[in-house]
Amino acid sequence: MYQLNLGSLSLTEFLNDYWQKKPLLLKGGFKQFTDPLTADELAGLALEEEIESRIVSCVNKQWDMQTGPFEDFSVFGETDWTLLVQAVDHWHPDAAKLLDPFRFIPNWRIDDLMVSFSTPGGGVGPHLDQYDVFIIQGEGKRHWRVGMPDSNLQQMCPHPRLLQVSPFTACIDVITEPGDILYIPPGCPHDGISIENSLNYSVGFRAPAQKDLLTGLADHLIDHDVTGKRFSDNGRSAAKSVGAISDTDLNQVQQLLQQLVNDKTMLPHWFGSLITRAKHELDINEPDPHYSNEEIAEYLDEGSVLSRCGGLRCCYYQQTPDSDILLFINGDQITLPANELTTAQLVCDFTALAPEQNLHFTHSAERLMLLTSLINQGYWYFSE
Amino acid sequence: MYQLNLGSLSLTEFLNDYWQKKPLLLKGGFKQFTDPLTADELAGLALEEEIESRIVSCVNKQWDMQTGPFEDFSVFGETDWTLLVQAVDHWHPDAAKLLDPFRFIPNWRIDDLMVSFSTPGGGVGPHLDQYDVFIIQGEGKRHWRVGMPDSNLQQMCPHPRLLQVSPFTACIDVITEPGDILYIPPGCPHDGISIENSLNYSVGFRAPAQKDLLTGLADHLIDHDVTGKRFSDNGRSAAKSVGAISDTDLNQVQQLLQQLVNDKTMLPHWFGSLITRAKHELDINEPDPHYSNEEIAEYLDEGSVLSRCGGLRCCYYQQTPDSDILLFINGDQITLPANELTTAQLVCDFTALAPEQNLHFTHSAERLMLLTSLINQGYWYFSE
Ligand SMILES: O=C(O)CCC(=O)C(=O)O
Ligand SMILES: O=C(O)CCC(=O)C(=O)O
Ligand SMILES: [Co+2]
Ligand SMILES: [Co+2]
Repeated sequence: MYQLNLGSLSLTEFLNDYWQKKPLLLKGGFKQFTDPLTADELAGLALEEEIESRIVSCVNKQWDMQTGPFEDFSVFGETDWTLLVQAVDHWHPDAAKLLDPFRFIPNWRIDDLMVSFSTPGGGVGPHLDQYDVFIIQGEGKRHWRVGMPDSNLQQMCPHPRLLQVSPFTACIDVITEPGDILYIPPGCPHDGISIENSLNYSVGFRAPAQKDLLTGLADHLIDHDVTGKRFSDNGRSAAKSVGAISDTDLNQVQQLLQQLVNDKTMLPHWFGSLITRAKHELDINEPDPHYSNEEIAEYLDEGSVLSRCGGLRCCYYQQTPDSDILLFINGDQITLPANELTTAQLVCDFTALAPEQNLHFTHSAERLMLLTSLINQGYWYFSE
Repeated sequence: MYQLNLGSLSLTEFLNDYWQKKPLLLKGGFKQFTDPLTADELAGLALEEEIESRIVSCVNKQWDMQTGPFEDFSVFGETDWTLLVQAVDHWHPDAAKLLDPFRFIPNWRIDDLMVSFSTPGGGVGPHLDQYDVFIIQGEGKRHWRVGMPDSNLQQMCPHPRLLQVSPFTACIDVITEPGDILYIPPGCPHDGISIENSLNYSVGFRAPAQKDLLTGLADHLIDHDVTGKRFSDNGRSAAKSVGAISDTDLNQVQQLLQQLVNDKTMLPHWFGSLITRAKHELDINEPDPHYSNEEIAEYLDEGSVLSRCGGLRCCYYQQTPDSDILLFINGDQITLPANELTTAQLVCDFTALAPEQNLHFTHSAERLMLLTSLINQGYWYFSE
């Protein structure tokens, strides 16, 4: 278990003063940090077809970027390159634990754990992201500079697939050591140049844009065959210019859209489903043969520990204590009765369930069926 | 030219009392009606791959429906079937003229002209549509019954591809004769059974549903790479249950959507483009070789007549007399300066342009270029 050390700051102070506002260096954010994986393990992940990886290098001021899978790293030499692997939490249970200390931010906002290995001189260059990130320094040291958002920064494209920014003024300029953590809000330029072979862990966040939300709602309407109301125009007067689109007609069109997005009943359904969909492949291992309810009950009684598949996104929504609970797992919605809040919380609030917690599922046939189905889909598995 | 005869009704009375409200029989709606096409010509259209056609039959109480193209109609016998051909206005200039008398409703609301040929006993069965329709009786006679919307009507599916309703009470029960016109608002059940070989012309309307509108806006955001604002949550407090989606977060999601649809600047752009996209194939004949501006000017000076490609959808929008004009042709947007309203109206308000009207395009190089490009795309052509 990693424990976040905010130094003299309280969590409330961090949230009020820094979250989404200002970058922050947490020197020794993790005390006595030990890496959950080695550079060799990371390289091993980058061999896999289904794992997204890339190598960014800069040799003689010439930036390059290649995407994995990679077979041989020796061609890149000893310096000036960085290997970046996405969604490592999906494949490496110990690395996934690095997300847990940041779960004062709700699940749905957390995206994935990206891990980078950089050789001396390696880095992706000065850039900015649209999302918050906590960058944890693992083994090695890196020179990190972070600036405040600055609308004067120029976009630069030193390589068709690399988006960088012009040089920026740093408000944080530090050589990070194992366990140091940088918090970087969206839009803050940052640049990390490795001093020695170095591992960095990026806890990234999701922040859907208006386009994503609207597309999500549109997909929901299509998937659920919700046509909605049609344009209507009783009381229309005869068109003077038949080719004109009138403001009256446009206003009606707008009102139809407004009614759709003002409606609060559909909102949690499509949003929960949209926001729990995995962006990267999951390491799902469906048990074969499937377990029966009885077998699961037996394992639970025997004190087994359950772990959630790394990167599986689980959320719930309950409007009032009397409302049904909408449980969202990997984009699918399951409806639970209002009094099953503990069930929803056990499923969503924990990435591993201890024997005492698991007993909850043995107390009703419905709960056991739910858990059995989640295990049979490979979403939860017995880890001990 | 067909001339609509509303009898004792004024157009304003029709619009106030019937449009989208009540069905209406216009006995002799077209005086001395002559069919723009023959049953043989309609059958000819139904031979074509790119023209949507279907035959609905009912033999021994057994409904059937087949889609075209058709090669041989003799297999259907002499009675109890109807051939329906969609978007005949796209392929038959004379038939397209049947839409013109209904252009007191703006272009964008008008959909297409469907033509049916029914043998004695033929019809599609009692049903209702989501759209307004004017059904014109051509040659032959048909027994038409029309009712008011009735939520007690049951949906029936006598064939997987036929949606009918249970028997309904008629408020109009008439044997239509050539030139009679029925107006049927959305949701009104109707049933036409042919008494003798009979042609019917349906002037159909478009009424986009909330789903279509939202999808249209979503497509616009995607096509124009409009990401919009991202979810942001500075001032967030620490999550008590990390799996919960909070109402505060949902409200923010909703606000992002509301901002998007409350924005009036994007609205005419995507709506104009959405609503002018053709639903059925157009009979586009791109001239080869293309005309030069000079050649076009010459033809116009010589007094040529221009016709618009049948079914081509043309609309414009101008917010204020000082605003740029957004001209939409077949889903594409062209921006014209504020003082080019006449240009937009000539392009959108008329399906054919007389020599006097055409001279307008010779008075400026930009107008001539616009017209040349429309002709070279096959959207307008010299018909005389
Ligand atoms: O580890 C790296 O080199 C890049 C990290 C980074 O820029 C990020 O996570 O936003
Ligand atoms: O002509 C026909 O048989 C069907 C016409 C009809 O129902 C319609 O146009 O809505
Ligand atoms: Co970054
Ligand atoms: Co109908």
